[in-house]
Amino acid sequence: MDPQQEKAQQTPHVVIVGGGFAGLYAARELAGAPVRITLVDRRNHHLFQPLLYQVATAALSPADIAEPIRHVLSRQRNVRTLLAEAAAVEPAQRRLRLADGYALDYDFLVVAAGATHSYFGHDEWARFAPGLKTLEDALEIRRRVLTAFERAEADPDRQRREALLTFVVVGGGPTGVELAGALAEIARFTVPRDFRTVSTERARVILIEGSERVLPALPASLSAAAQRDLERLGVQVWTGKRVTGIDPRGVQVGEERVAARTVLWAAGVAGAPLARTLGVPLDPAGRVPVSPDLTVPGHEEIYVVGDLALARDKHGSAIPGVAPAAIQQGRHAGRNLLATLRGRPRAPFVYFDKGVMATVGRGRAVAGFWRIRISGYLAWLAWLFIHIWFLIDFRNRASVLFQWFWHYLTFKRGARLILETPEEIRFRAVAGVAPPDVDAWPPNESDAERPRD
Amino acid sequence: MDPQQEKAQQTPHVVIVGGGFAGLYAARELAGAPVRITLVDRRNHHLFQPLLYQVATAALSPADIAEPIRHVLSRQRNVRTLLAEAAAVEPAQRRLRLADGYALDYDFLVVAAGATHSYFGHDEWARFAPGLKTLEDALEIRRRVLTAFERAEADPDRQRREALLTFVVVGGGPTGVELAGALAEIARFTVPRDFRTVSTERARVILIEGSERVLPALPASLSAAAQRDLERLGVQVWTGKRVTGIDPRGVQVGEERVAARTVLWAAGVAGAPLARTLGVPLDPAGRVPVSPDLTVPGHEEIYVVGDLALARDKHGSAIPGVAPAAIQQGRHAGRNLLATLRGRPRAPFVYFDKGVMATVGRGRAVAGFWRIRISGYLAWLAWLFIHIWFLIDFRNRASVLFQWFWHYLTFKRGARLILETPEEIRFRAVAGVAPPDVDAWPPNESDAERPRD
Repeated sequence: MDPQQEKAQQTPHVVIVGGGFAGLYAARELAGAPVRITLVDRRNHHLFQPLLYQVATAALSPADIAEPIRHVLSRQRNVRTLLAEAAAVEPAQRRLRLADGYALDYDFLVVAAGATHSYFGHDEWARFAPGLKTLEDALEIRRRVLTAFERAEADPDRQRREALLTFVVVGGGPTGVELAGALAEIARFTVPRDFRTVSTERARVILIEGSERVLPALPASLSAAAQRDLERLGVQVWTGKRVTGIDPRGVQVGEERVAARTVLWAAGVAGAPLARTLGVPLDPAGRVPVSPDLTVPGHEEIYVVGDLALARDKHGSAIPGVAPAAIQQGRHAGRNLLATLRGRPRAPFVYFDKGVMATVGRGRAVAGFWRIRISGYLAWLAWLFIHIWFLIDFRNRASVLFQWFWHYLTFKRGARLILETPEEIRFRAVAGVAPPDVDAWPPNESDAERPRD
Repeated sequence: MDPQQEKAQQTPHVVIVGGGFAGLYAARELAGAPVRITLVDRRNHHLFQPLLYQVATAALSPADIAEPIRHVLSRQRNVRTLLAEAAAVEPAQRRLRLADGYALDYDFLVVAAGATHSYFGHDEWARFAPGLKTLEDALEIRRRVLTAFERAEADPDRQRREALLTFVVVGGGPTGVELAGALAEIARFTVPRDFRTVSTERARVILIEGSERVLPALPASLSAAAQRDLERLGVQVWTGKRVTGIDPRGVQVGEERVAARTVLWAAGVAGAPLARTLGVPLDPAGRVPVSPDLTVPGHEEIYVVGDLALARDKHGSAIPGVAPAAIQQGRHAGRNLLATLRGRPRAPFVYFDKGVMATVGRGRAVAGFWRIRISGYLAWLAWLFIHIWFLIDFRNRASVLFQWFWHYLTFKRGARLILETPEEIRFRAVAGVAPPDVDAWPPNESDAERPRD
């Protein structure tokens, strides 16, 4: 073994699982440190998740909010990026098994594998109500929403048209509120003039929240402001209601049946399955309860950060799964790791709460920081500024700003593309509905809901 | 039947199949005319096909070069857009059957269904060598190219790494030349610093053309200029060679075997299958030989335009399948259709040849108009100007310009995303290669081709 190689072998190997905010900031904190880092992700891109709903609602393109992880880290020479899926941690061997059969030996492991959707024991709902965690999810939601309008335009049956123009969003947190607001804007402002038969303005958007108010993590006054803004856009906000069934034709809400062809899931999250291999008890949501220094109890060489971690603030409350928390935890894990290398004690993690924000359509938002509560246009400007600021790469920042500005001026949405062969356009045959006589289609002009102008 | 409805029934019904250049310009030519138009396309978007290779090579996003057809036509009130797949024409009944079981009765039919790939009788090659006609094709090519670099970075076997870093483009027309040039640029300028183990600059890009020179439709001096520019970028140009086999491991070129994991097809096109239902003989490429007025012989109410038409210029040469020809033919069909409605004779189509252009990487192109032949930077500026000019919507124009400018300044490519779950990362298991000992991976530092800096 030549001296250089020997030296490389002696340098501690840090393996980071996940290139989201937590993993990325952990890697960055270790820039210049005497470690070899391998960052493993099954996607090639870092995703700016707070703007994902804008891809789902056709305002932005995937590339506007994503960047190859290896490119983000290209100048940090002690990092290697590896496109691979982490299959299992073997804590006793200090080894990470990959899905392709290979494995990585580590000296330190930072698990930032994030969270996935939870359907509260009803995994069969996933097919009918996609959630929003990845770019693929966003494109699937976009495809369903745009296809619903297309199908409604072509369908001669009024009842089916109404079900096609009913959009149900389950879950009234920030993602649900943002999705519902954007859907209402699309139906009312973006697409009406493009259609001839259907009146897209009559589309129903229903937001269902189990607790007594939307945005339950925010102060009550902001929940009320958000609900008012949503209702002004035409969204029906149903609070204190639970979804008890979802199928291809609609949603069951207790006694009530809602015929809807598009249902989106923004309700529950669950920790990534990798957590189960750590050999420690998890909380009911599949998260890893971490020690105050963010390590796994009994394994001071394993950190868990981001949405997968169940960390607690000084009052004992769980720290929420939001981007600022992930960033702070990633950095803190990096710092503690360096402290250990230098023989110093690890510090407990202290969460700096930057508040919560949510947009409610064009030019409206709610935001709460400490005791400050703002809503309306000012909150939206704050939201805009903060999100653009945090977009990592300049190109993305400028491009996103440009798209928004254009979209704001024109009510257009620049990315209204249905990709994939739209097999769904054969829906009538699939649904077993016999085609009517040829003459009955296209719907007669008199059948159209929209006056010709 | 009320009077308004009766009047609507009397208005001639024009059905247009296809929302590409030909179909779109036919519809536009009929703006304000006393006809009801139904434009049928199985995609929801019009695609600016000349820039599709830029999506495939991660410089642009799909939304930059596509726009919903119904949005492009939203102000033209005599058009309805229908997302549906045309299955068969029934000329005797003047009826278009749709794949979903419905049908449209027409008074006039404009078939602008375009072309698809042709593998010259080797359809089994399609899986290993995707072509470039749709946005889905472009995203698939992008995924393969970017995944090849990722796999090469992770693969401990030198021989497989080399196959992963070999890219073969079959077909030396404009698409093949543009793809090959862009691939060489990615490998040499865009990604090198992002990788740690592989030297992407050593990637081989091979362009294979069956005839004696690339861009055979252009004057020989321009072919020579294009080849010189390609070779300057490191592309190996093989002319006068035919591919005789393609499989997952590579390409057979006569006696020669090229180990390559990424093969792209830019060689043959074939008319859309819908043409077979018109009941007229087709040419060997599946195109419809049309009368001088662009109607189908024996059916003066059916026009065929764009890539699907085999029209001839005054010298008897086939008019090429390029965007300007499609635009001119679409417009001409619209004008002839109006003439018939007004009881006037139809005019023969006269092709105005605007020449052919192709870019060869950053800042280089070749262009031929009439007797003018330019190459190099000036040709590239002309290419840029013309393509941006023709992008239909302002937003796209500005956004594309912005992306190019940024890309030009920085050599970056803004859309380097691998979408879909990258199942390919399990390639080693799939390929039946036993994982080596854990210690052998990741490749030792000394095994890396790239010096650490």
